[in-house]
Amino acid sequence: MHSVHFTAETSSNGVVERDFIVGEVPGVLWSPVSGSDHAPLVLMGHGGGLHKKTPALMARAHDAVSTWGFTVVAIDAPGHGDRPLTAEDEQARADLRQAMVAGDTERVKAVSVRYGTSLAERAVPEWQATLDALQQLPEIGTEAPIGYGGGITLGTAIGMPLTAVEPRITAAIFGGGFVVRQELIEAARRITVPIQFLLPWDDEHVDRQSSLALFDAFASKEKTLHANPGDHRNVRWFGLDDEFLARHLGRVGVSPS
Amino acid sequence: MHSVHFTAETSSNGVVERDFIVGEVPGVLWSPVSGSDHAPLVLMGHGGGLHKKTPALMARAHDAVSTWGFTVVAIDAPGHGDRPLTAEDEQARADLRQAMVAGDTERVKAVSVRYGTSLAERAVPEWQATLDALQQLPEIGTEAPIGYGGGITLGTAIGMPLTAVEPRITAAIFGGGFVVRQELIEAARRITVPIQFLLPWDDEHVDRQSSLALFDAFASKEKTLHANPGDHRNVRWFGLDDEFLARHLGRVGVSPS
Repeated sequence: MHSVHFTAETSSNGVVERDFIVGEVPGVLWSPVSGSDHAPLVLMGHGGGLHKKTPALMARAHDAVSTWGFTVVAIDAPGHGDRPLTAEDEQARADLRQAMVAGDTERVKAVSVRYGTSLAERAVPEWQATLDALQQLPEIGTEAPIGYGGGITLGTAIGMPLTAVEPRITAAIFGGGFVVRQELIEAARRITVPIQFLLPWDDEHVDRQSSLALFDAFASKEKTLHANPGDHRNVRWFGLDDEFLARHLGRVGVSPS
Repeated sequence: MHSVHFTAETSSNGVVERDFIVGEVPGVLWSPVSGSDHAPLVLMGHGGGLHKKTPALMARAHDAVSTWGFTVVAIDAPGHGDRPLTAEDEQARADLRQAMVAGDTERVKAVSVRYGTSLAERAVPEWQATLDALQQLPEIGTEAPIGYGGGITLGTAIGMPLTAVEPRITAAIFGGGFVVRQELIEAARRITVPIQFLLPWDDEHVDRQSSLALFDAFASKEKTLHANPGDHRNVRWFGLDDEFLARHLGRVGVSPS
């Protein structure tokens, strides 16, 4: 089993940020300066083409740490951020660029689905190894409740198959904004934990019905669909249930600070 | 113009309940015992076959008064509660019963749509006259912001055409759970105020796509679709944006008590 190797540490606004490596996977851990003994651990995924310290992800992580005292972890997806590109990554990216330049939306869709499937297959065991390693840290241990804190697009395309096979995850935020492939429908049917599903209502690149079919497929008794106008690049979320993870990860009755 | 004639007054748990009549329409006004000078006024609609003091509506009204200091008003829809039945009401109800007994779902739907349209046509001017009269009360006046506080089914079938023609309503909660007729799609296209739309995800009697088309039709820039599992009789709402009306009716920053 791999351990967590910390490589850098900084802090700002009461939040400690620690870069780490588990095996070959680089990640980052955010936690309260004031300490975080067995606080809930929230996994966050970045979008396609982005990385673990994308500004929007960092803002969400800081907010989760400051408001709820969570520990937040993000890792670079295969072929993203500080990760090397495999021949498959290079080929998929070249295919995507070519199809986009040619305006061939069917081909863009086909390549995205194939590449997304491959990324998820590689990313799920990486997330599991990261969890194994993080649980060896005394401040996390096996007592910290674990939730998947979303990210629409690639963050969900990886988070759904992860949540389907990973019993340590007891609540999850997913979202639309990507092409729904059959594997994801099947993952949804195996997911029973409480789900919050965020849908950008007007996504020109994504069939809305397929996202609704995905929400429909979750086996979870407790699931909420939340839609706001906009596509996945321009959606402004409002009226969200901000306490969703806190409620399900055992921070009920803990006031936001 | 009609005035408000109060006919009874009781109070419990810090909430005053005043029965009233405006013209021939009976209504009820809930407000804080501690007073409610120009507090936001929230209009609540009851479901089909029910009335202004249905337990679920009363519970929501008490909660809105206690938590936010709102004034809440409900009136009996035409042919409901303390209202007399017209020949049309009698006929529609007989038709509905007959179609239900015969198991003729197409006819149930046709009668519901026709009767719902008629109820809304009669109810909209009654709500407007009630608002005119309530605004003559010194504790409400023309300063109190006004919101439509929902009720799925008939409460929405009446509230949507009302909100479409009534500029005094500046935010509204609607919901699915009824057969969507074309007039409602057209009402939605004229509605531009912030909307919260509650959808019971599994309603055996209602086509889900027609409810999604209705949400799609709202012209509002700020609209939220919120779905939870269940049909409209058995849905349990969770993760709702409980502050929606408070935020839009000028109670931002007012802490719930």
